[in-house]
Amino acid sequence: MAYRVAPLTRLIEQFEKLPGIGKKSAQRLALYILDQPKQESEAFVNAIIEAKEKIRKCSVCCNLTDEELCPICANNSRDQSIICVVAEPKDVIALERTHEFNAVYHVLHGCISPMDGIGPEQLCVKELLTRINAGEVNEVIMATNPTVEGEATAMYLSRLIKPLGVKVTRLAYGIPVGGDLEYADEVTLKRALDGRSEL
Amino acid sequence: MAYRVAPLTRLIEQFEKLPGIGKKSAQRLALYILDQPKQESEAFVNAIIEAKEKIRKCSVCCNLTDEELCPICANNSRDQSIICVVAEPKDVIALERTHEFNAVYHVLHGCISPMDGIGPEQLCVKELLTRINAGEVNEVIMATNPTVEGEATAMYLSRLIKPLGVKVTRLAYGIPVGGDLEYADEVTLKRALDGRSEL
Repeated sequence: MAYRVAPLTRLIEQFEKLPGIGKKSAQRLALYILDQPKQESEAFVNAIIEAKEKIRKCSVCCNLTDEELCPICANNSRDQSIICVVAEPKDVIALERTHEFNAVYHVLHGCISPMDGIGPEQLCVKELLTRINAGEVNEVIMATNPTVEGEATAMYLSRLIKPLGVKVTRLAYGIPVGGDLEYADEVTLKRALDGRSEL
Repeated sequence: MAYRVAPLTRLIEQFEKLPGIGKKSAQRLALYILDQPKQESEAFVNAIIEAKEKIRKCSVCCNLTDEELCPICANNSRDQSIICVVAEPKDVIALERTHEFNAVYHVLHGCISPMDGIGPEQLCVKELLTRINAGEVNEVIMATNPTVEGEATAMYLSRLIKPLGVKVTRLAYGIPVGGDLEYADEVTLKRALDGRSEL
């Protein structure tokens, strides 16, 4: 191509790396950034830098937070005896949208996937067992995605947790099988919470 | 919402400001950035900062470049006597994809739009007239989008340029009327170049 300006090309390539952003979208986003007033692009850059610096894992549930405890673990009105185990922070956001769940979460940051070389030691499993061993937990709800990896992770964890004398349940199959928890609507997620079954 | 982490919320809001990025996509992109290794997000941030710092307008054609002259104006094998006038840098990229045009461009950086308060003085019109007055130009091809604003801009410029004794042509309506130049395919754009008509 005759027309290549290195810094622009690099910016387009960076946008192309983002999930769901193709060649045309990357070009549009890069040109949009160049067209913005300087303070707008600085705000964008600073939001990235600030988020990368300040956001870390909650010391209890491993969800994303900018403090020692995430807002959910820090909330005393939440039932700390029921832990809902999810794969990703986005799943917490999805479940919170139902306004139906008043206990706490545990974020694994992935699912067991031997194909990708991800075993339990790469996930926040140790932290979950520490919480359960502390003895305040009555029930663990498995809310991983209804995929092969999600099911395998739920099965693996239930085998670890059941011997500790804690009830382990699974979200009901209100969630469309093979789908993604993030895209389930509020009603479906509420049904899935209500109809949870013991593993 | 019970679960709000300020730096994450701010990052999601920044992504939402981008064109074509909705709430769900903004959330996915923000969480993706947080999940990346630090050097990846630094490369992204640096690409934005570098592009904003280095990219400026070519001193001849006003297209985006990181040097005094853009690669097209600096290319001696290009016919400098024919200028193709476009509204935006993305239109140059689209026309260059045809590999059929071997002359030069002029980027207006917008179209005349009284509704948005954009008159000729907000566009790179003065720079175009300077080029034409230098006396080396035989033809000006109007390649603004076939929209109301694009047509008005082409008509306005042709009335300015024709009295200077320069041939003014318009891209043929091979481009779907009401469409966007950026999304025209290569063949349509080539037809439009071949069938250009005098204004």
